[in-house]
Amino acid sequence: MTTFAALHHTDTPLLLPNAWDHASARALADQGFPAIGTTSLGVAAAAGLPDGTSDTRDETLRLALALGSAPYLLSVDAEDGYSDDPENVGEFARELATVGAVGINLEDRLGPPALHAAKIEAVKAAAPGLFVNARTDTYWLGDGAGTLDRLDAYQQAGADGVFVPGVTCPQEIGALVKHLAVPLNILHTPTGPTLPQLADLGVRRISLGSLLYRRALGAALEAVAEIRAGRTPSGTIPSYDEVDAFSRRSC
Amino acid sequence: MTTFAALHHTDTPLLLPNAWDHASARALADQGFPAIGTTSLGVAAAAGLPDGTSDTRDETLRLALALGSAPYLLSVDAEDGYSDDPENVGEFARELATVGAVGINLEDRLGPPALHAAKIEAVKAAAPGLFVNARTDTYWLGDGAGTLDRLDAYQQAGADGVFVPGVTCPQEIGALVKHLAVPLNILHTPTGPTLPQLADLGVRRISLGSLLYRRALGAALEAVAEIRAGRTPSGTIPSYDEVDAFSRRSC
Repeated sequence: MTTFAALHHTDTPLLLPNAWDHASARALADQGFPAIGTTSLGVAAAAGLPDGTSDTRDETLRLALALGSAPYLLSVDAEDGYSDDPENVGEFARELATVGAVGINLEDRLGPPALHAAKIEAVKAAAPGLFVNARTDTYWLGDGAGTLDRLDAYQQAGADGVFVPGVTCPQEIGALVKHLAVPLNILHTPTGPTLPQLADLGVRRISLGSLLYRRALGAALEAVAEIRAGRTPSGTIPSYDEVDAFSRRSC
Repeated sequence: MTTFAALHHTDTPLLLPNAWDHASARALADQGFPAIGTTSLGVAAAAGLPDGTSDTRDETLRLALALGSAPYLLSVDAEDGYSDDPENVGEFARELATVGAVGINLEDRLGPPALHAAKIEAVKAAAPGLFVNARTDTYWLGDGAGTLDRLDAYQQAGADGVFVPGVTCPQEIGALVKHLAVPLNILHTPTGPTLPQLADLGVRRISLGSLLYRRALGAALEAVAEIRAGRTPSGTIPSYDEVDAFSRRSC
């Protein structure tokens, strides 16, 4: 079992915060997080591309390259792999592993389960050491129907863990945990269960998606509104030196 | 006079907030700011490069390219122009103008005033329509000595405006305004004069430097600490749809 995989089997769930750039990843690692995820919404917003376009493939690889060598474990949100050809998805996963990523997220977008399973198999073949977190969008884009069948197919294809964003009902989360042989990843939302509640339900990984990026943007807008109104901006503002330290590559 | 230059001569000073990526620029423009600056610290931190290395030249151009076509006026922080050869600096300015920038910041880092003046002349020759904001680091890196002589040289070389970050004493700011023929740009800091005070002193442009980027990073760390403690994160969090809207190019 890889170091990253082992983090899914400790006493407490793995809290995986999602960074949008080099400094945010370094700053989060500095808070004691052993692993950092990326967020596709952050990548797309930073580059000015809509979330979900294949143009973001290059930007995603660029970000992984900028983050990969730092002193934390990196898991990359690769959306749907940016291709309907499983071989292309496997090739992208190999590139991610080459630049230092240890995990990948792949989402099904409610497309054919067999296609998603084929992508998972291709990734495991191309980059066997990469932890594949297979996401189903049954709750994110739908009403939850078909979740168990999809998760079964993805486990069967070799997924190391599964991710079901959008599910927040404790009973449903508990039922998923009971059904699964691999670790369940849940997206934390401010209105959903707290971290201790998710831990009690048996969730093994908790990610924050685009929450931190969105909060960062919101805080910048708050600050400029306060300044424009002649007030001192509220909240913590890291010094130049602190941010500068997060800018330097670790090796 | 260009539209951007005219913003330095209205009833109130131009408040120029500094963005670090596409979405932050779009979100700031959405708040009614007609012009947006970039911040070199944000660019370097996002890419994992120390502020002030020539590697950031490419990243700066990439950011200008991502932002340049959006519905706001873009002024780019180009540090020292990434070269000691004025012709190279002029060429970089021409590239920035080509991708849509209407302004450039050039800092002297307390190097020879004649070299900085030569860079300003080269930029005005290569990209006549670009508003050149000539920065002196006499206060940022020193005790203020030599400020007037440097500003005279930069005005003489064709600077459209001058920038003196680090000066916060109202009397000194007032004296600079009185001495100058071109608009004075001051860096706003939470501990310095407020916007109305700077306006009363005759300051024509107020920029925020890396403040918004640093606040954004600070807010993300606050949010993850709150979540880790089992609490709901405080502050405004834009929705997925809001951030997604900031991700789409305007044309």
